[in-house]
Amino acid sequence: MAHLSPFAPVSVPAIPPLAGMTFATAAAGIKYQGRTDVLLALFAPGTTVAGVLTTTKCPSAPVEWCREHLAGGQARALLVNSGNANAFTGMKGRETVSASAAAVARTLGCTPAEVFLASTGVIGEPLDPAKFEAVLDDTAARLSDGPWVDAARAIMTTDTFPKVATRTVKIDGVPVTINGIAKGAGMIAPNMATMLSFIATDAPIAAPVLQALLAKAADASFNAITIDGDTSTSDTLLMFATGQAPVAPVTETGDRRLAAFRKALASLTLELAHSVAKDGEGLTKFVAVTVEGATSAKSAKKIAFSIANSPLVKTACAGEDANWGRVVMAVGKAGEPAERDRLSIWFGDVRVAVDGARDPDYSEEAASAAMKKPEIAIRVGLGLGRGKATVWTCDLTKEYVAINGDYRS
Amino acid sequence: MAHLSPFAPVSVPAIPPLAGMTFATAAAGIKYQGRTDVLLALFAPGTTVAGVLTTTKCPSAPVEWCREHLAGGQARALLVNSGNANAFTGMKGRETVSASAAAVARTLGCTPAEVFLASTGVIGEPLDPAKFEAVLDDTAARLSDGPWVDAARAIMTTDTFPKVATRTVKIDGVPVTINGIAKGAGMIAPNMATMLSFIATDAPIAAPVLQALLAKAADASFNAITIDGDTSTSDTLLMFATGQAPVAPVTETGDRRLAAFRKALASLTLELAHSVAKDGEGLTKFVAVTVEGATSAKSAKKIAFSIANSPLVKTACAGEDANWGRVVMAVGKAGEPAERDRLSIWFGDVRVAVDGARDPDYSEEAASAAMKKPEIAIRVGLGLGRGKATVWTCDLTKEYVAINGDYRS
Repeated sequence: MAHLSPFAPVSVPAIPPLAGMTFATAAAGIKYQGRTDVLLALFAPGTTVAGVLTTTKCPSAPVEWCREHLAGGQARALLVNSGNANAFTGMKGRETVSASAAAVARTLGCTPAEVFLASTGVIGEPLDPAKFEAVLDDTAARLSDGPWVDAARAIMTTDTFPKVATRTVKIDGVPVTINGIAKGAGMIAPNMATMLSFIATDAPIAAPVLQALLAKAADASFNAITIDGDTSTSDTLLMFATGQAPVAPVTETGDRRLAAFRKALASLTLELAHSVAKDGEGLTKFVAVTVEGATSAKSAKKIAFSIANSPLVKTACAGEDANWGRVVMAVGKAGEPAERDRLSIWFGDVRVAVDGARDPDYSEEAASAAMKKPEIAIRVGLGLGRGKATVWTCDLTKEYVAINGDYRS
Repeated sequence: MAHLSPFAPVSVPAIPPLAGMTFATAAAGIKYQGRTDVLLALFAPGTTVAGVLTTTKCPSAPVEWCREHLAGGQARALLVNSGNANAFTGMKGRETVSASAAAVARTLGCTPAEVFLASTGVIGEPLDPAKFEAVLDDTAARLSDGPWVDAARAIMTTDTFPKVATRTVKIDGVPVTINGIAKGAGMIAPNMATMLSFIATDAPIAAPVLQALLAKAADASFNAITIDGDTSTSDTLLMFATGQAPVAPVTETGDRRLAAFRKALASLTLELAHSVAKDGEGLTKFVAVTVEGATSAKSAKKIAFSIANSPLVKTACAGEDANWGRVVMAVGKAGEPAERDRLSIWFGDVRVAVDGARDPDYSEEAASAAMKKPEIAIRVGLGLGRGKATVWTCDLTKEYVAINGDYRS
C-alpha cells in the first residue's frame, strides 16, 4: 500500500444530495478484496449526458461503448468498476460491455443505450460480466442519494484518497447543484489505470449544450494535468444533467443564464483535476507550469506540457533543485516557436533567467527557497505573443519507480 | 560517482591511427578537477566535414556556430569541452564561441570558419574562453595520432565508460579507416548534458556526399535511441573525412564504391549509439523496441519511441515485469494508425498478445524469463502495412531519479 499523498485533504467535504440521481456501491471481488469496486447510479427520466473520452488509438471496450451512445444524449444509468479496465480484451471485452449494459437495463428498467459504462484497472485481463450480475439486484435495492464519498471510494485504484467536489450556483435565481467525483493516480497502467470522473447536476441542460460546457471545462482542467505523460486506454469524463431543478431548460450554448454555472463547472473540474495531480504516484510536490508570451494558447500549452512531462524537470522538482537549465531544454524540445534570447524563467516569484541568460540578480538562495515549498510554480515567458496556458503535474520520485517497477503478481 | 554501467565493456577496443588527423587532450579545469575536459584535433588541409545537430529550438552557442560553418564543408580543427555546455548563455556565449574559434585558428594556422566546436555540461553558466586559451599552446604542441580512448575520456560527463569504435573497409581495394567516439548519459541537462559524437575517416569524400552518408547513418542509430525523451540543447554529431587514403575522391552520393563504406558507417554509428544507451543513467536493462506492420517506417518509429519513452514501460523493464498492457497503452497514445484487434506483442520470443487480446497460449513464466535478461526485446506487430523500425532505450530506475534529483551544487 502506497503512502498517503502529502496533499490528501484532512477531511472530506460534505456533498449534498443531487435531485434525480441515486447510487450505491458494491464489493464484487473483481480484483480487490475487502473493499467496494462497483458503482451503480440511476438517473431520472430525461437526464442528458455529455462526455470527454481518451484520445488513444487503442481505447477500452467501455470507452467505445460510451462514444457510440453519447450520440443519443440520453442517460438513465451509470455502471463503473475498478480493478479491471476491460481494455485490450478483444471481442470478449465487447461482449462483456453489451451483457453488462443489458443487465443494468433489465434491473433498472431502461434501454441498454441509456446505460453508460466505465472500467479502470488491469489491462488485457478478461472481465467477467457475471461479476456485475451477481451484485446488481442487491445494489439496485440499496440506491440512495449519498454519501458521495462512497462512490468516489469504489472507483479508486492506486489513489490514496477519494476525490469529491461540489458547487452550488443559481440559474434564474434558483439554486442548482453540481457534484463530481474523480480517480487518477498513474495516468494509466494495468495495476492502477486511468483517470475517471463523473459529474452530475440537477440543472436542465440540453445534451449539446452540456457537451460544449463540459468540453471547455475539461480543456482547462482534466486536459491540463499530467502525471507521467502516459495516456490511458480508458480516460472517461461523463457529465449528467437530471433536469430536476425548477428552471426553464437551457437549450442554447450562448444562454446568458449559464454565466455562473459555467464558472462553477470550471472551478469544480479544476478542483477535481488538481486532486488527481495531487495524488500522483509517489509524489512529494505539486507543480504548476505556466507558459506565457507564446504565439498562441495552443503553443503555450504544448510547451507547458513539454516542461511538465520532462523526467529531468520532474526529478529536479523532487530534488528541490532550481535547475532552470532543464526548463530551457524542455522549452527547446517542444518544437514550438521560442527564441532563446527572449526567454525568461521564474521559480515562484524568483526570476532566474532573462533575455537568454542567467538573471544578473540571480540568487541561488531565493530560487532554492521557492523549490522547497510543497507547491512549486514554474513560469516561462517567451516574449513572442499573447498565448498563455497553465498545466499541472507532480514530481518524479524513487517512490514512483518503486510503485510502477514492482512485479504485477 | 555513479556505479559503472553493467554494460561497460571489459576492455577498450584498440583504435588504429587515422591518417590526416592528430589530437590531444587537456585538463583546463572548466568544471571537473583531476581529469581532462578539453579535446583539440587538427585535420589535414582538404578535410571535408558533415554534421547532424540537435533539433531543439534553443540550441547552444557551439551548435549555432557549427550549423553556420557546416555550409562551407571544410574543416581543419575541432575543439570540444566537457563541464559546461555554453547553452542559454546569450551574447556572452556567442562571444566565447567566436573567441575560441579565433584562438584555435591562430594556434593551428587556419581560418576560424574551419574550426568546429562542441560543448557539453552545465546549461546557463558563462563559459570563459580564457580557459581554452590557457591550455591551447601546450595542447597543440602535444598533438599525436592516439590513443583514441583519451579523446573519448575528455568529452565524458556522467558517462561511466569511454565510448570508441572503429571499422576498416576497402574502397577500390584500398583499406580505409573509420574511427569514432561518443558520449551520452542523460540525454541532456545541466549536470550531465547531451550526446556528442565525432567520427573521422581517411577516405576522400566530398562534403555533400559525406553529409548524405552521415544523415542516413544517424537516422538509424543516434536518432533511434532515447534515455529519457529529453532532447538536448547541444546534441552534435560531426564527421570528418581527411582524404589521406590513396583513393580517387568520392564526389557522388550514388558512387558504387561506397557500398562497404556505407555499411561500415551504419554499423559503427549503431555501435556508438548502443554504447550511449547502454550507459544511460542508472540503467540495469538495455531495451530494443521493434515495431513492424505499421503503415510506414516513420509511423513505426514514432510508435517505437512512444513505447521506449513511456515511464511505465521503462519502470516495468526495471521491475522485470512482462507488463504488456503498458505497451498497448504506449501504442495507443502515439497517435499513429493502430488497430487494437490486429495488435500482437512479443517479449523476446514469447508472444504475449495477439489479435487484440492476451495470447491463448500465454505463459507468465516464459514472459517473465524474457524480462529477466539484461537485454530485453519488445516487439509489436500492428498488422497494417510494411513499415518497420527499431529503437533502443534503457530502463527507468530509482538510481536515475537519484542521479537527477540530487542537488546541483
